Amino acid sequence: MDEQRGHYLEDLQVGMSATYTKTVTDADLVLFAGVSGDINPMHVDQEYAEKTMFQGRIAHGMLTASLISAVLGTKLPGPGCIYVSQNLRFRAPVRPGDTVKARVVIKAIDQERGRATVDTICTVGDRTVIDGEAVLVVPRRPLAEAAE
Amino acid sequence: MDEQRGHYLEDLQVGMSATYTKTVTDADLVLFAGVSGDINPMHVDQEYAEKTMFQGRIAHGMLTASLISAVLGTKLPGPGCIYVSQNLRFRAPVRPGDTVKARVVIKAIDQERGRATVDTICTVGDRTVIDGEAVLVVPRRPLAEAAE
Amino acid sequence: MDEQRGHYLEDLQVGMSATYTKTVTDADLVLFAGVSGDINPMHVDQEYAEKTMFQGRIAHGMLTASLISAVLGTKLPGPGCIYVSQNLRFRAPVRPGDTVKARVVIKAIDQERGRATVDTICTVGDRTVIDGEAVLVVPRRPLAEAAE
Amino acid sequence: MDEQRGHYLEDLQVGMSATYTKTVTDADLVLFAGVSGDINPMHVDQEYAEKTMFQGRIAHGMLTASLISAVLGTKLPGPGCIYVSQNLRFRAPVRPGDTVKARVVIKAIDQERGRATVDTICTVGDRTVIDGEAVLVVPRRPLAEAAE
Repeated sequence: MDEQRGHYLEDLQVGMSATYTKTVTDADLVLFAGVSGDINPMHVDQEYAEKTMFQGRIAHGMLTASLISAVLGTKLPGPGCIYVSQNLRFRAPVRPGDTVKARVVIKAIDQERGRATVDTICTVGDRTVIDGEAVLVVPRRPLAEAAE
Repeated sequence: MDEQRGHYLEDLQVGMSATYTKTVTDADLVLFAGVSGDINPMHVDQEYAEKTMFQGRIAHGMLTASLISAVLGTKLPGPGCIYVSQNLRFRAPVRPGDTVKARVVIKAIDQERGRATVDTICTVGDRTVIDGEAVLVVPRRPLAEAAE
Repeated sequence: MDEQRGHYLEDLQVGMSATYTKTVTDADLVLFAGVSGDINPMHVDQEYAEKTMFQGRIAHGMLTASLISAVLGTKLPGPGCIYVSQNLRFRAPVRPGDTVKARVVIKAIDQERGRATVDTICTVGDRTVIDGEAVLVVPRRPLAEAAE
Repeated sequence: MDEQRGHYLEDLQVGMSATYTKTVTDADLVLFAGVSGDINPMHVDQEYAEKTMFQGRIAHGMLTASLISAVLGTKLPGPGCIYVSQNLRFRAPVRPGDTVKARVVIKAIDQERGRATVDTICTVGDRTVIDGEAVLVVPRRPLAEAAE
């Protein structure tokens, strides 16, 4: 049960960070197209994509952004937190074969409202491909446990 | 080639809208978990989820948000536009079996910078589950075509 | 290696048959949408589909038809045959949860041209959902083997 | 709702056409194998396939044909039409990495029976890989709307 519990609000500190890293493959693009319905030729048609400024197929921006959700929901703050908002800036394309590192860093904690603000950044090598910010409601430690 | 081209900046008007609607199934949750790596028990563990305030598994917020990408990338503005930013507020949970309508409405057009700002809303029935705003670079009509 | 070889033309007889049976799930619809790009609301939007004569989402006709390809390519005639043509009549809808039996029956053999014509039928319970006919080139037994 | 409606029978004209283009990847072959059950070594076993006349793995013919379904169901005639029949001739192999363009052209309209016959062609570059013909029931414009 403990393993299914993320951090309590009391455990968070500004500067804490966590990452999730994944190689984006052609399979991810096909599956994401099926789930999202986004069959923009930029993602599924190599000949079209080669004629654009990106010179080849690129991953859906929201596919890359979904790795942020993986870090927030499984590591920091982890299970139990509730996603309030997510701002995303798409800074550079991600191509099939690229390995994306999603990183979240605690930026501010609002003890009163029970919320944490986190920086959310996705990089491929040294290049930032997405940056942004998320706000989450983080559960407080139950009184019983606090008293132990 | 024409069919793979979305709207030109010159074709957009404030108030234009488009939608994409999809029923979110268990399969979508499993596939999104695989693509994103987000295996938060809230999405994959019914027994865990039943004990939370949501009383059952819910879809990943970013899964629902991905339907916005489908509308922007395939309908309005459509192929050729470039995603600059997306802000999302998660307002209510989406459960397996819910039918989500993603709707985008042109809110402002910046002719000088070649950008459009759009309202992005996801609803289940009358309930708003996500709202937010996106900014996109929209290609201008090529001069050759404009001269026709 | 033998296991990867299907029937030789000389082994086929009119009336031989084979089947492949599969339950079509929501997951199949999502995956087929991703692979095919077919996001017709009839397959992905339960609220839309409920208002049609089908009163709910149905599987892509070509998804059901793909089970015929499974029988032909793995059982009868099996590996080594080449698909020349396939005619399909869509007779009734298949819904998520339906178990489809694809059945092929050898109907005619053209020894001279090295081809077999097969009846191809998909059923759900007693109901025919697809019928049609396929023609395949079937390899002849190699001389070396024939001499053994 | 309007956006989910394709063309009415009254809107169709002989010669109208639409396309959908997609690059067929290894992921598509794997997912199609899973959905269809077609695990013919020609599609999944590179060593086997290299020894055949095709000299390497090829996509399932029905996978390529499924792109036709995407055009018919989402563009022309679009949502609301009903697939009556589809004839397919497999003319040349499609390999992982090939970009397939599926094109449909209205060939005949039967106002009395409410049906359209369309040519359905898949090409890779200049090469035709599938040709054939489909028949669809296309809904008539509702009387209320016709009176407007």
